[in-house]
Amino acid sequence: MEEIDAALKHALARADLVIATGGLGPSDDDVTRQAVARVLGRQLVEQRDIVHAIEERFAARGLVMPRVNRRQALVLEEATAVPNAHGTAPGQWVEQGDQVILLLPGPPREALPMLATLVVGSLARRAPGAREEKRTLCMTGVTESQVEQTMQPLYARWRTQPVGIGVTTLASPGLVELHLRARSERAGAAAEVLDRAVAEASGVLGDHVFSQGEPLEAVVGELLRERGYRIAVAESCTGGMLSGRLTDVAGSSAYLERGVVAYSNAAKVELAGVDERLIEREGAVSEAVALAMARGIRERARVEVGLGITGIAGPTGGTPAKPVGTVVIAVETPGGADVRTFRFSGSRYLVRTHAVQASLDLVRRHL
Amino acid sequence: MEEIDAALKHALARADLVIATGGLGPSDDDVTRQAVARVLGRQLVEQRDIVHAIEERFAARGLVMPRVNRRQALVLEEATAVPNAHGTAPGQWVEQGDQVILLLPGPPREALPMLATLVVGSLARRAPGAREEKRTLCMTGVTESQVEQTMQPLYARWRTQPVGIGVTTLASPGLVELHLRARSERAGAAAEVLDRAVAEASGVLGDHVFSQGEPLEAVVGELLRERGYRIAVAESCTGGMLSGRLTDVAGSSAYLERGVVAYSNAAKVELAGVDERLIEREGAVSEAVALAMARGIRERARVEVGLGITGIAGPTGGTPAKPVGTVVIAVETPGGADVRTFRFSGSRYLVRTHAVQASLDLVRRHL
Repeated sequence: MEEIDAALKHALARADLVIATGGLGPSDDDVTRQAVARVLGRQLVEQRDIVHAIEERFAARGLVMPRVNRRQALVLEEATAVPNAHGTAPGQWVEQGDQVILLLPGPPREALPMLATLVVGSLARRAPGAREEKRTLCMTGVTESQVEQTMQPLYARWRTQPVGIGVTTLASPGLVELHLRARSERAGAAAEVLDRAVAEASGVLGDHVFSQGEPLEAVVGELLRERGYRIAVAESCTGGMLSGRLTDVAGSSAYLERGVVAYSNAAKVELAGVDERLIEREGAVSEAVALAMARGIRERARVEVGLGITGIAGPTGGTPAKPVGTVVIAVETPGGADVRTFRFSGSRYLVRTHAVQASLDLVRRHL
Repeated sequence: MEEIDAALKHALARADLVIATGGLGPSDDDVTRQAVARVLGRQLVEQRDIVHAIEERFAARGLVMPRVNRRQALVLEEATAVPNAHGTAPGQWVEQGDQVILLLPGPPREALPMLATLVVGSLARRAPGAREEKRTLCMTGVTESQVEQTMQPLYARWRTQPVGIGVTTLASPGLVELHLRARSERAGAAAEVLDRAVAEASGVLGDHVFSQGEPLEAVVGELLRERGYRIAVAESCTGGMLSGRLTDVAGSSAYLERGVVAYSNAAKVELAGVDERLIEREGAVSEAVALAMARGIRERARVEVGLGITGIAGPTGGTPAKPVGTVVIAVETPGGADVRTFRFSGSRYLVRTHAVQASLDLVRRHL
């Protein structure tokens, strides 16, 4: 609690807006409320309507609210409780002179929607004139450094133009995100500059760019919808992760007909119609088997797009000819079939994540 | 860069060890190296062996290292580069008088293994006598508040004993983690106290506790191995996420025979052998259909354990009788069959995540 005190005092000495996350739960170690109350010299007051709301949340799940949850209804005097649509702990909006202190719950799924609501609402009304605009470009099939190298001539120009553009690159397995931002007193000016920048960047980055923020599985889903296609997938090394990504998208039942996780050879034969002799002759991880999986699942499901993935996720199971990280991905569409062999590096998690991303990307490029 | 300068100066004024993560990449906005060099008044020197190592990483993927990656070989004078097993950017170990400044790469997958190695190695050798010991209890099927309520009498006792125990509770969808820690000059004393505490906590928390840190899918996998059982799963609303979790575990091909994602009714009939008339009569989301999915996939895969999941993940598709969040999970083992109907709340993501966790837990409790 002393550390929270010190951090809060330090923050209040420097900033107009202080955001604290976490420590609003029902546990003994959730002491942010008390620490902030002490630093500001205010009381904590239990709000009956919040107690009721928490009781109802529990009741909806057929549970009785444990007594400790009443702590979550303690709100600082003269502060406003911020409703939490995704959990029991409400946030708190505290004003101290011209400063605002926001207490948000710790879980990002609870805190971020609350912050998003506040940012466009109460916080935006307090902010000065200049507005920041943002754009995001999502890419796959390229490395962060390749993007950097390709983009540098544009960066140099963007930095020196009247409304400058700030750039941040974020990379995660199989995904590079370029975040562009610009500020101007007139909101329209920043938006114009960014729209032009997005067009220029898309020009040099080509079809590696798959969206302006939408996840790849949503882009693939939208393309399937547009074509009126349905898809069926047969996965081995990714073990259901690809189907899991596709079905993250609400409404995916309109185009995902089925998926099979054909981990054993028997399952490859029975579920995806792969010829047993083909597996014996070529090996389970081979272009012939991946193609047979894509074709087999496509035929059995009677759909337009079939996808087959087979590989060695590791950490064991590699051979000199087919080391850990070897993944073969095949797609068959009404336009024909395609197969690619990848060699991903890193842990089992990384190999699988890269394989899923590459599979979605292969489908995207064939729609 | 000014902000990094200020933060670093602030940290050096307060702490013996300063850890900075991120900003070691190849992009223009990766300026942590330069900022630290400036604050400490040192030069950055390109290390040839690091350039070679990065070139080889790219070569292994069949790529040529972009020129911008040479930035990642810039190391502060008199600093030591820390090898990065999971990415291109090495870390840096910088000593300034008695203080240590650690520069770690931003991606947690790269930074955390590096930190773990340093903590047990170079950092531990500099630390004072008292050692902190830790234990973790992982639970599912209970809420954070239920755990808190159950544990409070123990907490009260633990706090006042000679070697006190600190407790932190962490909750995520379908998972509550209790972290216990104790310090003593004699490492053995802290370990003894914690082992006793773990036994006491397990006593009151019962079989909600599934591990001391291992993920649930690994616990289920280990139980399947012990019994010599194989499993097959038929998923509808979780769409492959459950198979994806099971196959996160290295060696899971020993017990996962197959999975099917039976999103359409046709797939439920063809892949899991569900009677079409049963679906018409009872509805796709019903205990009868979940049981038929578990039994059907178990028979077709010729394995000991069959699991069936069907539900409404949302955001649409709910009815007054079966609202969004209704999920039915069935398991069949040599010991018999069991089926449960859950009503989860929250987003599509939360419903699916809870459903996967509840499915793994149901299997665990029947092994």
